[in-house]
Amino acid sequence: MAGHFPPLRFPIVQAPMAGGPSTPALAAAVANAGGLGFLAAGYRSSADLQDDLLRVGALTRQPVGVNLFVAEYTVVDEAAVAAYGETIAPLAARHGAPLGLPRFDDDELEAKLAVVCDARPPIASFTFGCPSSLAVERLRERDIAVWITITDPDEARLAASAGADALVVQGAEAGGHRGTFRDADGNGEIALLPLLRLVRRVTGLPLVAAGGIGDGRAVAAVLAAGARAAQIGSAFMRCPEAGTSDPHRAALARPGRTALTRAFSGRRARGIVNAFMREHDTDAPSAYPHVHHLTAPLRAAARHAGDAEAINLWAGQAYRLAEEAPAGELVSRWGAEAASALREAQAIIDGRV
Amino acid sequence: MAGHFPPLRFPIVQAPMAGGPSTPALAAAVANAGGLGFLAAGYRSSADLQDDLLRVGALTRQPVGVNLFVAEYTVVDEAAVAAYGETIAPLAARHGAPLGLPRFDDDELEAKLAVVCDARPPIASFTFGCPSSLAVERLRERDIAVWITITDPDEARLAASAGADALVVQGAEAGGHRGTFRDADGNGEIALLPLLRLVRRVTGLPLVAAGGIGDGRAVAAVLAAGARAAQIGSAFMRCPEAGTSDPHRAALARPGRTALTRAFSGRRARGIVNAFMREHDTDAPSAYPHVHHLTAPLRAAARHAGDAEAINLWAGQAYRLAEEAPAGELVSRWGAEAASALREAQAIIDGRV
Repeated sequence: MAGHFPPLRFPIVQAPMAGGPSTPALAAAVANAGGLGFLAAGYRSSADLQDDLLRVGALTRQPVGVNLFVAEYTVVDEAAVAAYGETIAPLAARHGAPLGLPRFDDDELEAKLAVVCDARPPIASFTFGCPSSLAVERLRERDIAVWITITDPDEARLAASAGADALVVQGAEAGGHRGTFRDADGNGEIALLPLLRLVRRVTGLPLVAAGGIGDGRAVAAVLAAGARAAQIGSAFMRCPEAGTSDPHRAALARPGRTALTRAFSGRRARGIVNAFMREHDTDAPSAYPHVHHLTAPLRAAARHAGDAEAINLWAGQAYRLAEEAPAGELVSRWGAEAASALREAQAIIDGRV
Repeated sequence: MAGHFPPLRFPIVQAPMAGGPSTPALAAAVANAGGLGFLAAGYRSSADLQDDLLRVGALTRQPVGVNLFVAEYTVVDEAAVAAYGETIAPLAARHGAPLGLPRFDDDELEAKLAVVCDARPPIASFTFGCPSSLAVERLRERDIAVWITITDPDEARLAASAGADALVVQGAEAGGHRGTFRDADGNGEIALLPLLRLVRRVTGLPLVAAGGIGDGRAVAAVLAAGARAAQIGSAFMRCPEAGTSDPHRAALARPGRTALTRAFSGRRARGIVNAFMREHDTDAPSAYPHVHHLTAPLRAAARHAGDAEAINLWAGQAYRLAEEAPAGELVSRWGAEAASALREAQAIIDGRV
């Protein structure tokens, strides 16, 4: 199985975007166009995941993967979490929302693995760490390929040892949570292009490049850099098939800059800078998913109210390339763009320009 | 002139690396191998620059560019600079070095422009801002192409308006100083791949991609992403022709991580994390070149003593790819690697793998 990579018409993987944007409709649209769709199991119940798998199966016969969180329990500074709760309490009150209960949970990993083993999608990808050797064994017995997200060469080594069939190489430009195995300043800050080259020195596994890829030229670029496929997130977020909230969609259509912050979840993630991030970034402790739960009711209320200044606006550094267009149209356009980008690059190398 | 790009056997530009690594021998070796060499005028006197131009002219008949700083005077917090001096004074004393006089200077820009106008290299590139319209006019009258370094789409717009013939697009992964027009947190943090695509939306000028490029596959990647050439720095620093100091060479050969810091110069720059950076990063004010002058004697003494923990170890995120090999050999190897990388990428796009 190792080294095997699913045949795709276009080497384009739709990034699993937990928390709303990923839907069965988006995954199916990408899959039907010849890319690889993904369901994001994160933050959903195992029953929801089961529903999503049924729904996607009704929409496409093409392969669609499932992404799972493997968040490990770490000791957090509970006093710091409580203090952080106090700093955001006034804003929560203004939105008529309670503070959530800060707590660890493992996102129902075992139950979701059981759902996946039952449904047998072609690929299960993992974020925030490596699945156990037992989990890898169970998946492989069912011909489910194991992809592991990594952000530096050390994580790549660990993932290869854990039995990954492919690595999702997440550059620092990526939107949403950093997939670092450990949330620490200085971890996971390598940009995609150098990261692909550094990771290739430690493993021969197929690499799926993720982060800041928003058009066909960028797809071509990561293939040239040694990736087997390009994983794209933000550039799908304005698709009609995506579940992106209205205030999030509007923010993606405006100029802005992105930054990493722990303010929303207690784990570093990249989003468009807004008032919440500016006001709370420096106070937020490293405590995931504790802070995620703490801020969840506030964010839900703000989202409902259309207040883009109080919600997490996950986006990668290339988010301004995102267009409001059907996902399938984007996939085939990017495939054609990638082919012509490679021809133009070849002309430069050959001295024909 | 706009849109014109010098003919090169390989689309590889040797990054100007001020402060030692760039030498006439390195520029000539790259030029003779079919890349574009560069002299780094920064921190040198105009008389030194004149010497360098004579020396490079004796070593190659191929084109070699000259890079100039255009640091603009900005008001700095003099009390903060003085306080910073106090924090580093004990270390300076241990090295038997005085503190330098913190001050602004414009790196002899006018005198160097006169030297360049006289010597007529094919290209003058600029860092930290745009040259004046008068300077651009003088250069163009002498058929000297004007390249301007930029780090975001707004700077790209300004540079295009200032009359640039090409833009050096510096991604956040680059080693050494950020080329931002203004040194501010949050400025210049976009990684190369998304930056190339975002800049292309605002200008049709030829783009030279810089930052984290350390081998032929990365060269191919930036060409596919729309660049006309790849500018490479760290990967040339271990060449015998480079003027890189011994402790810096040794650090480049060791594992480590890089980060941005103002600790050495008062302007954000990327280098390998060492004791000086860890201890002084948070105290260092934004004050360039004031802090550069303040720390210069200490750094010179530490460099002389071979102490890698007290000097600026500028390096990009891909520095571990740097090899100890002649520059010309690297250029031709990278050219061949780039060509085969494009063929392999084409095979993926065509569905032949």
